[in-house]
Amino acid sequence: MHDVRPPAEATVVTDEELAALDAHWRAANYLSAGQIYLLANPLLTEPLRPEHVKPRLLGHWGTSPGLNLVHTHLNRVIAARGLDAICIWGPGHGGPAVVANSWLEGSYTQTYPDVTRDAAGMARLFRQFSFPGGIPSHVAPETPGSIHEGGELGYSLAHAYGAALDNPDLLVACVIGDGEAETGPLAAAWHSNKFLDPVRDGAVLPILHLNGYKIANPTVLARIPEKELDELLRGYGHHPIHVTGDDPALVHRAMAEAMDTALDHIAVIQRTARDEGIPDRPRWPVIVLRTPKGWTGPAEVDGLPVEGTWRAHQVPLSEVRSNPDHLRQLEEWMRSYRPEELFDAEGRPRPQVLACIPEGAHRLGTNPHANGGLLLRELPVPPLEKHAVPVDKPGGSLHEPTRVLGDLLEDVMAATADRRDFRLVGPDETASNRLQAVYGVTGKAWEAETLPTDEYLVRGGRVMEILSEHTCQGWLEGYLLTGRHGLFSCYEAFVHIVDSMANQHIKWLRTARRLTWRAPIASLNYLLTSHVWRQDHNGFSHQDPGFVDHVLNKSPEVVRVYLPPDANTLLAVADHVLRSRDYVNVVVAGKQPCFDWLDLEQARAHCARGAGIWEWASTGEGGEGGEGGEGGEGGGGEPDVVLACAGDVPTLEVLAAADLLHRHLPDLRVRVVNVVDIARLMPQGEHPHGMPDQEYDALFTRDKPVIFAYHGYPWLIHRLTYRRANHSNLHVRGYKEEGTTTTPFDMVVRNDLDRYRLVMDVIDRVPGLAVRAAPVRQAMADVRFRHEGWIREHGTDLPEVADWSWTR
Amino acid sequence: MHDVRPPAEATVVTDEELAALDAHWRAANYLSAGQIYLLANPLLTEPLRPEHVKPRLLGHWGTSPGLNLVHTHLNRVIAARGLDAICIWGPGHGGPAVVANSWLEGSYTQTYPDVTRDAAGMARLFRQFSFPGGIPSHVAPETPGSIHEGGELGYSLAHAYGAALDNPDLLVACVIGDGEAETGPLAAAWHSNKFLDPVRDGAVLPILHLNGYKIANPTVLARIPEKELDELLRGYGHHPIHVTGDDPALVHRAMAEAMDTALDHIAVIQRTARDEGIPDRPRWPVIVLRTPKGWTGPAEVDGLPVEGTWRAHQVPLSEVRSNPDHLRQLEEWMRSYRPEELFDAEGRPRPQVLACIPEGAHRLGTNPHANGGLLLRELPVPPLEKHAVPVDKPGGSLHEPTRVLGDLLEDVMAATADRRDFRLVGPDETASNRLQAVYGVTGKAWEAETLPTDEYLVRGGRVMEILSEHTCQGWLEGYLLTGRHGLFSCYEAFVHIVDSMANQHIKWLRTARRLTWRAPIASLNYLLTSHVWRQDHNGFSHQDPGFVDHVLNKSPEVVRVYLPPDANTLLAVADHVLRSRDYVNVVVAGKQPCFDWLDLEQARAHCARGAGIWEWASTGEGGEGGEGGEGGEGGGGEPDVVLACAGDVPTLEVLAAADLLHRHLPDLRVRVVNVVDIARLMPQGEHPHGMPDQEYDALFTRDKPVIFAYHGYPWLIHRLTYRRANHSNLHVRGYKEEGTTTTPFDMVVRNDLDRYRLVMDVIDRVPGLAVRAAPVRQAMADVRFRHEGWIREHGTDLPEVADWSWTR
Repeated sequence: MHDVRPPAEATVVTDEELAALDAHWRAANYLSAGQIYLLANPLLTEPLRPEHVKPRLLGHWGTSPGLNLVHTHLNRVIAARGLDAICIWGPGHGGPAVVANSWLEGSYTQTYPDVTRDAAGMARLFRQFSFPGGIPSHVAPETPGSIHEGGELGYSLAHAYGAALDNPDLLVACVIGDGEAETGPLAAAWHSNKFLDPVRDGAVLPILHLNGYKIANPTVLARIPEKELDELLRGYGHHPIHVTGDDPALVHRAMAEAMDTALDHIAVIQRTARDEGIPDRPRWPVIVLRTPKGWTGPAEVDGLPVEGTWRAHQVPLSEVRSNPDHLRQLEEWMRSYRPEELFDAEGRPRPQVLACIPEGAHRLGTNPHANGGLLLRELPVPPLEKHAVPVDKPGGSLHEPTRVLGDLLEDVMAATADRRDFRLVGPDETASNRLQAVYGVTGKAWEAETLPTDEYLVRGGRVMEILSEHTCQGWLEGYLLTGRHGLFSCYEAFVHIVDSMANQHIKWLRTARRLTWRAPIASLNYLLTSHVWRQDHNGFSHQDPGFVDHVLNKSPEVVRVYLPPDANTLLAVADHVLRSRDYVNVVVAGKQPCFDWLDLEQARAHCARGAGIWEWASTGEGGEGGEGGEGGEGGGGEPDVVLACAGDVPTLEVLAAADLLHRHLPDLRVRVVNVVDIARLMPQGEHPHGMPDQEYDALFTRDKPVIFAYHGYPWLIHRLTYRRANHSNLHVRGYKEEGTTTTPFDMVVRNDLDRYRLVMDVIDRVPGLAVRAAPVRQAMADVRFRHEGWIREHGTDLPEVADWSWTR
Repeated sequence: MHDVRPPAEATVVTDEELAALDAHWRAANYLSAGQIYLLANPLLTEPLRPEHVKPRLLGHWGTSPGLNLVHTHLNRVIAARGLDAICIWGPGHGGPAVVANSWLEGSYTQTYPDVTRDAAGMARLFRQFSFPGGIPSHVAPETPGSIHEGGELGYSLAHAYGAALDNPDLLVACVIGDGEAETGPLAAAWHSNKFLDPVRDGAVLPILHLNGYKIANPTVLARIPEKELDELLRGYGHHPIHVTGDDPALVHRAMAEAMDTALDHIAVIQRTARDEGIPDRPRWPVIVLRTPKGWTGPAEVDGLPVEGTWRAHQVPLSEVRSNPDHLRQLEEWMRSYRPEELFDAEGRPRPQVLACIPEGAHRLGTNPHANGGLLLRELPVPPLEKHAVPVDKPGGSLHEPTRVLGDLLEDVMAATADRRDFRLVGPDETASNRLQAVYGVTGKAWEAETLPTDEYLVRGGRVMEILSEHTCQGWLEGYLLTGRHGLFSCYEAFVHIVDSMANQHIKWLRTARRLTWRAPIASLNYLLTSHVWRQDHNGFSHQDPGFVDHVLNKSPEVVRVYLPPDANTLLAVADHVLRSRDYVNVVVAGKQPCFDWLDLEQARAHCARGAGIWEWASTGEGGEGGEGGEGGEGGGGEPDVVLACAGDVPTLEVLAAADLLHRHLPDLRVRVVNVVDIARLMPQGEHPHGMPDQEYDALFTRDKPVIFAYHGYPWLIHRLTYRRANHSNLHVRGYKEEGTTTTPFDMVVRNDLDRYRLVMDVIDRVPGLAVRAAPVRQAMADVRFRHEGWIREHGTDLPEVADWSWTR
């Protein structure tokens, strides 16, 4: 750790500069209040009347003046220093502030030409805010310059770090509200500075804004002694710089000084690391800005204090149309900014207001990093042939699918070694998930102390591991939104930790896709492994396949779910998702040794189709140990029963069941269908991947029993297929929360997904089989009974299960 | 803030005491390793042979010696001071350690009499660990003395604070692993000390265990300078006490001293607050224990360092059955504890080993707070009559349902003022969610600085607000698990933040219910409000009704979901869930003014039934503005169409649609069915509340179109009902991610849940209606079109929507 700081040089802000900064700030405050309140009379050219005011008052005033102050002063230093900078607005419910600044700097009009930078545009700007057909009240995809939704709090700082990674010339300012600072994800993200390389990464400048209140309460960090807060921030590895006050002139000076101090400090840190090669982790600056909530708004309303209290959180004056006193207060408040000094008669900002604003792409609202698709390059995914496992016959060999994927990712890491636009994130599980081949090319980012026994920890490593799924997700989102690529590998059960973050990212993408000015970004790719069926050793707490259900509730234009059943299908899926855009791809794949069913060519064809008949495993012409290919629809003749499967373990059990059926009931015509792309089951029109009914019927028949072994909760398959023909003949097996610490095979037995149970299901469901196949059914039941006794005695699975392989 | 500490007095630990502590620790280490490795030969009375070793080696050795050290030293101070104490074991994957200690102190045998405290019991103890039919490898419900699952990391400290609340005489020790310390929920929970009242609450003693490594990486907190770590802990409001070392004798002395220092400090804090009435927030002690990972295990294996590195995380020697060198190392390792000194020939622990163990319920494994149901008292829920809203006719008045509930909760708060066993938690939303009546009786817990403008902040307040859903959930779980009652009120969308915590709590309850020795505890009650349909102002990010889907994937014996449609039904549901045991109850209810449909008696009957026909809203005999009662099944004659609803806004739209149908198509026989208890839709046998097919058919008919307006994602209703008769005739409307910032009614229009769309659905689905009702259908479509233009012009909903009321 080093703590080199620049000499404290007094920032010289002339009175003229100060006046210009204040004018910009007042203009932004005026425009923020105007958005919340006004439908008409935007310049207050006439006395304010009730009908000028919106009938429904929405928005968050409280945080807006603080955000406006930060934006004003970021403008100043960006212009003065020619910085390449973006800002993450953690208190993003202060949407009016960020929009106001964007309009002032011209980026809003550049993005939305109908919102001109004049009186007509100002009227439109005001009206559209939080109004039907208009824009959201929070910072959102619609907001130029933003990569961060302001609705759900907690993720700003992780987003900022994600944006800064591999952008050595970028400054990412990050305003953290003292409300957001109470959340877990934000609290964890402070330690991101142990992963930021001052040489290869850019800088993050956190600005902790203590306006003191949340919706209805003071905030914790505003109510601990400043010394204690400083200890906390120093404990996080930062050097705090305080700006405190409520006198605008004094605060402007202090803020200008603080910004200069912080940026000088960052410059010294980067120079020390880059030019002098000092490898110690630096202590980065943080600005603590303490200004009143709702600053410059009404001090008191109806006899109660508002400015500087939680009452300023949303709309300080709530009855403006009906209460003349409120109307008067609103007019006084808005005129206190002296709009006539700020805007000319046509509503155009006067030169003094615009003096601090940087030029062109230096403006926060137009920096291309905040519209990352503009910077995105194709990811160089190498040919799969090099990594595909050879498959002479289905099931003739075993591989760990994620380990095979790891080899591919190693190549991606190598191909991006100079470009540095691909990262792998995970909560301390990269090696556990068998992806460690990547360490052949890059290491794990680590800026804290190292010991000789450490492995693969390096400055600038592009694998990011911290035991926080939240931080991993936040980093990756920030990285993708600024135009790069990545993958998040996670234990399947614990990805629920980021359910809500995934929601918000999917919502962001859904909205961004509908905005023509936002360029597509790389998809967020999840690799969910160490999955439910192989958590027999860690037990019930580690068993949860529900993330698929969770994301499938979200916008179908964004969500994709894949369950590749073996190594080569995982490669084919990975190749697709890594190249894709604007999706959230969920890939569920095992890390345990798994039979190789398809060679690369078959895997590609199968994944492209998303679901298909495995003729080599089915009864019928062309099947039965034939050429190992995959049939088209309806190949192999009409079956007596369909055994369908999705997921690696269900596929294993279905094939073992098919094997048992071929042996014990050789005249039964069995069709095996494997589903990789789960959305293919959905009706056409409900998901872009949904297959036509005709295709569905060709796979699953219109009248034969379908026994479907699914990786997750069985009712998911029903909810996807309830409109299909033959749904009443569909019988799904899957995980039904019957978990514990046991053996792998016992997990499937407990949940009735095992091969013996599936054979029994077939016998129970195929008409006319019950009597004839009764002895077979009894034999299956006997094995299940024997299994129970065996595992309790031996602690391992039955030899006939452990040793089974596909031999047809 | 005050920082009073006791004078530093040297703890005098005699050599004899030291030897006894070390013997206990060695015994616990021996038993931990034994559980991981041995199937037989538990006392090593014969040379270790491969067949004595488990065929599958599972478990986590790395953290175990540290946990054993903490347990040993907690034993010492509990016995010496006669403390009432429990411990939360954050690194709960060290299950063998906690189980070993429980066995040593006799609480394991007391709980599981077949695991005797002798050689036979030791053999059973070893065999059962992580073995089919045995116990989980993590600390789990099966573990005596635990209220904290060790599988998913992040929640230990919040659980500890929850346990300490309102237990002034309880000490809650909490071991926090340095891996867990990286998670967001844990990082946020440190600030819980701003909410702990030293007078009315007990003490939490965090013990941050820095063994330096996670699965495959060093930990952040172990690799920052000690000074920086101290700043961090002081910034969290703690006084750090360090214990560092790898020489057991020295560490024992240091740990004993640290424990005494910390407990003396806590005693001073409590005395200062309780006897001297000093109101300042104290600086609480924290112990930082820095010992090697896998301490006392193999130093090197196969030439690579293991002890003191991440390689000690799980099973240090992995090939014991096949590699003679590993076998030899295991035997040496286990003999290094000198088992013959620790256990007599019959395998009973020798007196020296047991010397430090406290008596009876003072033992950590038998303290009743860790089996909270033993301490649970009935919650005094007052009669609902006082709070019920009068309903002379359906829809004749409006109330905000959650505000009415708030009045009831005020009474519950009053009735528990002395008992102090009920708390309300929420992320800064209690007043926003209209529950502020509780402030008439109690305030919001707050120990940090206050200002004159603050409202309702008091020491010892029983409303807990912090802007962290994780911390809220963790506090409440800890509070409930130690035998108290509570409610979590949360914005519906953001409860997804705790999806994974809810998973784990449901899993805990499911397992605990199957353990006869665990007494039932109060249910975890969620009030989800500020729900999807009334987030038109906050927009898309605040709109997510998917938590219901999430929990319904979990064990049906635990999960209950209620959607009361008005104020009195909310009261009836609240009365039920607040009295219930061992459930997770999800109650979704609005805070906006809502028509009162049922009087209290009707509401109670309706909620008891969970779903029923609203005859007063249906066509037919006894219906049509009749006595306002609810009919039995099949009342009102056979309908032409069923309009079903679940949730307050869908109920409103369905009734408005019924009103339109009664007016425009008076001869159409419409039945209105309302569902409160969503699980009633499930088949009998799949959920305890699932209704028999006969009852379902009586409500929904076997052949008539059913238009179902549901609060959340529409496919949920399909997945619950796909096995029912008439499912192909079921048409569900609900939220389909078509959200934005708009008006309330536009939200339902965008998602096709509005009254006009429902009428069109009826016309489209009832055979023979299409032609005859075409003009009505067109009229409905016209209103929807007009609506769009109106809101874009006026920003508020159509007058005919805003002014509608039920007038029949």
